[in-house]
Amino acid sequence: MSYQAPVRDQMFILRDVLHLDSYANLPGFADASLDLVEAVLTEGAKFCEEVLAPINHAGDQEGCVWSPDNTVRTPKGFKEAYAAMVEAGWPALGAEPEFGGQGLPRVLSLAYSEMSSSANMAFSMYPGLTHGAYSAILEAGTPEQKTLYLPKLATGQWGGTMNLTEPHCGTDLGLLRTKAVPQADGTYRISGQKIWISGGEHDMAENIVHLVLARIEGAPAGTRGISLFIVPKFLPTADGGVGDRNTGVACTGIEEKMGIHGNATCVMAYDEAKGWLIGEANAGLRVMFVMMNEARLGVGLQGLSQGEAAYQAAVAFAKDRLQGRSLSGPKNPEGPADPIIVHPDVRRMLMDSKAVLEGGRAFLLWTGLHGDLMHASPDAATRERSSDYMGLMTPVLKAFFTDKGFKICSDAMQVHGGSGFTEHFPASQYLRDVRITLIYEGTNGIQALDLVGRKLAANGGRAVMSFFAEIDAYVAEHEDDKTLAPFIAGLTSAKAQLQEATLWLMQNGLQNPENAGAASTDYLHLFGLTGLAYMWALIAEASAKRIAAGDTDPYYANKLATGRYFLERLLPDTGAHLAKLKTGAAATMALPAEAF
Amino acid sequence: MSYQAPVRDQMFILRDVLHLDSYANLPGFADASLDLVEAVLTEGAKFCEEVLAPINHAGDQEGCVWSPDNTVRTPKGFKEAYAAMVEAGWPALGAEPEFGGQGLPRVLSLAYSEMSSSANMAFSMYPGLTHGAYSAILEAGTPEQKTLYLPKLATGQWGGTMNLTEPHCGTDLGLLRTKAVPQADGTYRISGQKIWISGGEHDMAENIVHLVLARIEGAPAGTRGISLFIVPKFLPTADGGVGDRNTGVACTGIEEKMGIHGNATCVMAYDEAKGWLIGEANAGLRVMFVMMNEARLGVGLQGLSQGEAAYQAAVAFAKDRLQGRSLSGPKNPEGPADPIIVHPDVRRMLMDSKAVLEGGRAFLLWTGLHGDLMHASPDAATRERSSDYMGLMTPVLKAFFTDKGFKICSDAMQVHGGSGFTEHFPASQYLRDVRITLIYEGTNGIQALDLVGRKLAANGGRAVMSFFAEIDAYVAEHEDDKTLAPFIAGLTSAKAQLQEATLWLMQNGLQNPENAGAASTDYLHLFGLTGLAYMWALIAEASAKRIAAGDTDPYYANKLATGRYFLERLLPDTGAHLAKLKTGAAATMALPAEAF
Repeated sequence: MSYQAPVRDQMFILRDVLHLDSYANLPGFADASLDLVEAVLTEGAKFCEEVLAPINHAGDQEGCVWSPDNTVRTPKGFKEAYAAMVEAGWPALGAEPEFGGQGLPRVLSLAYSEMSSSANMAFSMYPGLTHGAYSAILEAGTPEQKTLYLPKLATGQWGGTMNLTEPHCGTDLGLLRTKAVPQADGTYRISGQKIWISGGEHDMAENIVHLVLARIEGAPAGTRGISLFIVPKFLPTADGGVGDRNTGVACTGIEEKMGIHGNATCVMAYDEAKGWLIGEANAGLRVMFVMMNEARLGVGLQGLSQGEAAYQAAVAFAKDRLQGRSLSGPKNPEGPADPIIVHPDVRRMLMDSKAVLEGGRAFLLWTGLHGDLMHASPDAATRERSSDYMGLMTPVLKAFFTDKGFKICSDAMQVHGGSGFTEHFPASQYLRDVRITLIYEGTNGIQALDLVGRKLAANGGRAVMSFFAEIDAYVAEHEDDKTLAPFIAGLTSAKAQLQEATLWLMQNGLQNPENAGAASTDYLHLFGLTGLAYMWALIAEASAKRIAAGDTDPYYANKLATGRYFLERLLPDTGAHLAKLKTGAAATMALPAEAF
Repeated sequence: MSYQAPVRDQMFILRDVLHLDSYANLPGFADASLDLVEAVLTEGAKFCEEVLAPINHAGDQEGCVWSPDNTVRTPKGFKEAYAAMVEAGWPALGAEPEFGGQGLPRVLSLAYSEMSSSANMAFSMYPGLTHGAYSAILEAGTPEQKTLYLPKLATGQWGGTMNLTEPHCGTDLGLLRTKAVPQADGTYRISGQKIWISGGEHDMAENIVHLVLARIEGAPAGTRGISLFIVPKFLPTADGGVGDRNTGVACTGIEEKMGIHGNATCVMAYDEAKGWLIGEANAGLRVMFVMMNEARLGVGLQGLSQGEAAYQAAVAFAKDRLQGRSLSGPKNPEGPADPIIVHPDVRRMLMDSKAVLEGGRAFLLWTGLHGDLMHASPDAATRERSSDYMGLMTPVLKAFFTDKGFKICSDAMQVHGGSGFTEHFPASQYLRDVRITLIYEGTNGIQALDLVGRKLAANGGRAVMSFFAEIDAYVAEHEDDKTLAPFIAGLTSAKAQLQEATLWLMQNGLQNPENAGAASTDYLHLFGLTGLAYMWALIAEASAKRIAAGDTDPYYANKLATGRYFLERLLPDTGAHLAKLKTGAAATMALPAEAF
């Protein structure tokens, strides 16, 4: 069975868990009635299932091909699918109406992006990064830059890229060397080498708009001397058309890599390429972080999306493959054996996955809704809280869901047995594709450091305190609800452990930052599990309401059962994370480097 | 830096932890003085580092190539390396002197195998499976079969394979269909299709000896009607030479797979191929399990071996890559940045790996030593206990060390950042290669079932009771030792939890086997961690002795520090495993299959 987009689950979350219709008074939301949202997602599902998913495997097998004339050929079918995507308007869902977008809430774009990424992650990275470029220009561009670039980026007619990494500098951007020389006409000449540029060159869009970090001649060393430039592959004409080739930009090769073969990972050579400063000089990192934060949320989504696709493949295999008999008596007595889904250890892997995927989908959309509210809410306190949450949750979602997504893809391969290791089945591609999500847009270790070193401390810990207060209020409101009792107990326990860990970090991380560094990944996972515990309480509450109202669809009882599994089988990890992180940095840092 | 065989660590374990010299009175051990062992391992290390490791990456890139004439070409350099291996006598280390082997203890072969598999897993599978065929014929062959096949298999002049899987049957061998028709001359004609046959065809050995499971015409259905046959590619001449081609055996294709590209995974077609029964009719599974158990231990070793190679690559990268500054002040003030090994979260990954690898190496060699003692000890009680341990530990080592090996390989990629995802660095190959170890020779889920369903229960639980008694005695002996105090405390706690889990299984697994199935993987990991806790206590004891004796080599203090890290950062997972498994099967099995 091929990929089936989880529209029903998304609609359940948007309607019953997040109460999307209660925001109808906000800008953008008025047009997003539940009926419209369902219609859009249903149509999007069709596109993802019928156009994007069928070219995913061949895209992996064929890969992108670079030619010595510095062009890149995408796999068979990608070009046609890209054109169909632009035609259908999928990239423009959440873009501003003034720039040709449909102005729908971001949470809806996220739901679509999940499906698109599940169906074909390598393909979906092209519009994904384009949207990042759109957001950066929207945030910091001049009115002229906006008029020139945004409409083309909104639709995907032009592609967009982020150019940060150089061979000697990835995480540590202060080391970057690409230089920008001001010209008399106000433009710059950009020179340097960038690597690992996703979608840096391809044959699907009319133009590619590179956003490039570089150092203006004479700028301070380190991160305070970095500026951001727009460097288009073709220079736009005044009316927004495609003009001359920007001859100083070239893709000089693509990487051979473990996965996402359908996405061109380019080496970009800039040799006096023409560029335009975007935002203020030496303040490029701030603008780049607009893209980066959006990209990080998108990468968390990719982790889940590959997990979902792999999980679906594993379920189909487990229902189909006949091997052994159920421990509780034959379930397929007429057949030579039972389907392997009867075996508890196969169930364990599927349930582990299902519990993370369904809770994670809610967590992602919950966060995405805050991404809307931080702009759209008329209430300043709500905007502040939502903005705090976005900052706080971005590293959590990025790292937690990519780690979990990788685990889910690996378990999906495991369910397949030997078949999973062959390239005849999709498990290998999902596992190979998802693996990059733990690395790019800041490794998961960097996310953990961002969380403990920056996001927790910001504004005196306001964001995490808000989150704790929200959970406390929720618990207080529901502590007498018998149906929810195990969910409230699990959430209370997880939150208490997260609070204890947070206190430990405050007391021990400031005095010795290596304590914070050594604790960071366990802290992030403890945070992710607590967030999931909250989501499962919300899901259980919504499901119980449906059941109480007489809805007999087993979907709701199954949600409660899956939530119970989460509490019993996944949440106990919080204790181990807490115990580990509280041991501090001493053992972690005990050995001299030469002892390794 | 390329792979460096851990001879020093192996010698420390053999000498100081396992006291190999105390067994000098046993057959085979007399020749294995510590000096000889060190000389053999040093020479083996040279072969692995200089011959096998250099062709590993190219073997992955080039892979095996099947031709329509049913031949398989191994990657460049494999043929020459194979010939050099046979010439040097590496496969024959542990084989019986009467069949051309060197008769050295198995524990020494295991140490060599670790190096060989780290250097080139795909290559080392060829002699690995050959040794399995050797063992099966040694166990169950007629004197003529032994004389004809064993000398050639011992040296590796002839290769060997295991043929179990058919398209519709892997784990569930009762379903197998390959048939054997008795001939007037006492031979059989074997017909059927076998898949996933590692080394089923290649160009490195003079002959390939297939051990094939098949059903003699008229045999009972299910597993009680399966027999094992020797089906050589070339029929041996009476004097042990290579005779006519056994025309009914052909490799009709090889799998395209995620990793181990240098090892041919063959589809084998048997069409009235000539074969000889080995062992008794309808008792083939018992003999096959001789191979299988040996192979399972070997697969656990592969998990660790890939972890070790990947860890070494990660260490080299972490010392070399300059990015960011240490949180406790610059460590490379003259350079543009510090090496990333200064960062606590990078350390966390390296320490996690180091603690598992060093403890795991001890666990593997400890088990291997019992594999020798079960045959070589003059004491019946020792032989029984060692045999019990081999049965008990085989599924633990197979599943625990392949799960951990995969984690280590993934962490090694993570340490590499974006470089790790490209095929220019070795991390991708290690991760892709190691992934099969969680699957083949019985998936890790099957190992867990074997442990809880068979190995625990055998002889009234004698094996696990022996293990608990051994730990109790060790704890009692060392409970006043201050240096060892944390190790004794950690071991005591882990063992108590494992005992509690064992009791829970006895009380709940019999009444409802699905409780045992649902608990099995967590139980196995709890077992593995407890085993490591025991090993780290032994290692700490040996290291402390060296230090007390005035040895100032930091190697020993580093062992104590790594052991402390294990206790603080890895052992806390025992609590989560116990909590999860004690929830039983209810939540795991709650959903109907159609809810997935």
